[in-house]
Amino acid sequence: MSVPAPPSVYPLFDATAPVFRAHEGGKLGVHATQPLRDRADLSLLYTPGVADVSRAIATDPSLASRYTSRGNTVAVVTDGTAVLGLGDIGPLAAMPVMEGKALLFKHFADVDAVPVCMETGTVDELVEAIARIAPTYGGINLEDISAPRCFEIEQRLQERLDIPVFHDDQHGTAVVVLAGLMNAARVVERSLSSLRVVVAGAGAAGVAVTRLLATAGVTDLVVCDSRGIIAPSRPDLADHKRRLAALTNSRGLSGSLADALLGADVFVGVSGGTVAECDIAGMAPRSIIFALANPDPEVHPDIASRYAAVVATGRSDFPNQINNVLAFPGIFRGALDSGAAQVTEAMKLAAASAIASLVPVPTAEEIVPSVFHEGVAEAVARAVARLA
Amino acid sequence: MSVPAPPSVYPLFDATAPVFRAHEGGKLGVHATQPLRDRADLSLLYTPGVADVSRAIATDPSLASRYTSRGNTVAVVTDGTAVLGLGDIGPLAAMPVMEGKALLFKHFADVDAVPVCMETGTVDELVEAIARIAPTYGGINLEDISAPRCFEIEQRLQERLDIPVFHDDQHGTAVVVLAGLMNAARVVERSLSSLRVVVAGAGAAGVAVTRLLATAGVTDLVVCDSRGIIAPSRPDLADHKRRLAALTNSRGLSGSLADALLGADVFVGVSGGTVAECDIAGMAPRSIIFALANPDPEVHPDIASRYAAVVATGRSDFPNQINNVLAFPGIFRGALDSGAAQVTEAMKLAAASAIASLVPVPTAEEIVPSVFHEGVAEAVARAVARLA
Repeated sequence: MSVPAPPSVYPLFDATAPVFRAHEGGKLGVHATQPLRDRADLSLLYTPGVADVSRAIATDPSLASRYTSRGNTVAVVTDGTAVLGLGDIGPLAAMPVMEGKALLFKHFADVDAVPVCMETGTVDELVEAIARIAPTYGGINLEDISAPRCFEIEQRLQERLDIPVFHDDQHGTAVVVLAGLMNAARVVERSLSSLRVVVAGAGAAGVAVTRLLATAGVTDLVVCDSRGIIAPSRPDLADHKRRLAALTNSRGLSGSLADALLGADVFVGVSGGTVAECDIAGMAPRSIIFALANPDPEVHPDIASRYAAVVATGRSDFPNQINNVLAFPGIFRGALDSGAAQVTEAMKLAAASAIASLVPVPTAEEIVPSVFHEGVAEAVARAVARLA
Repeated sequence: MSVPAPPSVYPLFDATAPVFRAHEGGKLGVHATQPLRDRADLSLLYTPGVADVSRAIATDPSLASRYTSRGNTVAVVTDGTAVLGLGDIGPLAAMPVMEGKALLFKHFADVDAVPVCMETGTVDELVEAIARIAPTYGGINLEDISAPRCFEIEQRLQERLDIPVFHDDQHGTAVVVLAGLMNAARVVERSLSSLRVVVAGAGAAGVAVTRLLATAGVTDLVVCDSRGIIAPSRPDLADHKRRLAALTNSRGLSGSLADALLGADVFVGVSGGTVAECDIAGMAPRSIIFALANPDPEVHPDIASRYAAVVATGRSDFPNQINNVLAFPGIFRGALDSGAAQVTEAMKLAAASAIASLVPVPTAEEIVPSVFHEGVAEAVARAVARLA
């Protein structure tokens, strides 16, 4: 009887495997949008003609968006410190993920996105480097930068720059969670403000989900990290968790995730950890479970379904995939089209509503549209641009 | 009788002019090199499949060139401080020029080039920012960065990075000047080493031209800046000019450009200034004049032709256009294909020889191939790769 080999954490590199063949030479190319056929084209697109365009922009910088690729280009910026579930694998190993992200930008919203994979450094160093290259782009999508550095990097860049700076691991996730929760609440015939919500995970996604749900009107929010419920009484809290503690836990709970889940209506897992079946069993009737850790949900959807009325995951092989790609392409499309200087909380709410409204009659099996649903990015873009 | 209006230094922006119509929306786009049709493609090109590629690169960073776009991507980096003849117009106004450069990379050598237009700063700040984003690229083409900052920025980056860092305003110009001079020397039946060469201009191009000609075997080199002949005795010399003084002027000349040109065989103008007809008249018989200032050569080619046997300019509307595009696409193509860590002096010499050899029988009217001559970049790339 043959015993299968255990899966290796770092599988051997196999150039013949489909995934490596698909990545040969990279996934992104650059092309001219104008024909370059002869000396006349060369004189128009390069010297001497180009000097007229440069002079015009020097005189009126607002023309840059119209007459350069800046108007349609987003930088997908990482330092490779928190890539997928792989952790701190560095900028080179992050490249395939950033290229993949750029493909999604192009495919779903016709945004030209280019990876910028940076040597890691201090918050100061990253902010300085990103701000310095920012004139090239119409927006900055921060990606897979470890918490808590990601919070300060995003905030300082947004204060300094007049283009949108959007950390997708935070806000893309938050927008789609909110969209899903809006429709899940309709399925169980509850209002958002009446729900007791527990968020497991206080990293990039957990912080942003919590904040956006609060903005959307959820009042009973409890956040747990690996040590349990986040409360002001805990002496071990980093700054971003202390701010979360001030915003949440209005009933002054303390204890474990199990304590938080007792009687809760909603579980949102963005932790990468696990939650025990008996804890899920303690939730209120007709509960909602978003187990978003990937590839292994905090609780298997088959188990979650025994207790919850609505179950969502981050996976494409179960119903209700909570996938950022529903949000970020349209959000940047809308921001670029409208010349927005930032992606505001109001824009995120509008984006979530737009995504939710694409499912006219939500059911337990369908609270968000498929990522390949036609017109998602367009609907999100319109909603965002309206608020610019 | 109508009098035409004088040309304005900053012409009014006219959206209907052909050059503005050609620039609408920018000149560059990004595209996927792999089809993204359905969930299966998505799983291969993005999560979860992409994680295998990221893990493989994390284990063996050398795989990054093969499995990401890094292997074919060059950053065209500027801070907009010395753009064409326009000077310090800043990063936004530099964008059309950098996009144009990227078009040339793609058209002539199938290199994916992306602009990176940076807020200007100190040498330290620019080196730090460029080094930080360098993992994204297979090479760095520095462009239109003011002298003398460009020298130190290039040198420090090349010391720090294991990818080619190439300031095209220096070395691209130098390579094509050397190619042209090789063939011009054949036209006048002289050896390079026998020529008395005067270089007018001690900026980026002047420094690099002088150094590469010296490497190629020219022994009698005199460089002039706006104050005249550069000699160790001059008290006003900046560092880069002091180094030039040590390398050149073996006959210990002092005085003006006119003094330098007395009896000289070759004039290479990369100054943006002018040279008087009477000074040209003082050169040796069967002289060679490269008046490369653009769009206004240091001496008009019609006047230069009265005295010189071979005349070249930077313009496409006269014979013998000394144009960097003959060099940089092929140089980067060769460096990327061979995984070269830098562009060495030997590679520049080989590139110049390759360009020169594409004109089998040089004449006074043809010392370099046309920029649209088939196979220039391929020939240069092969010559460069052979030395990697």
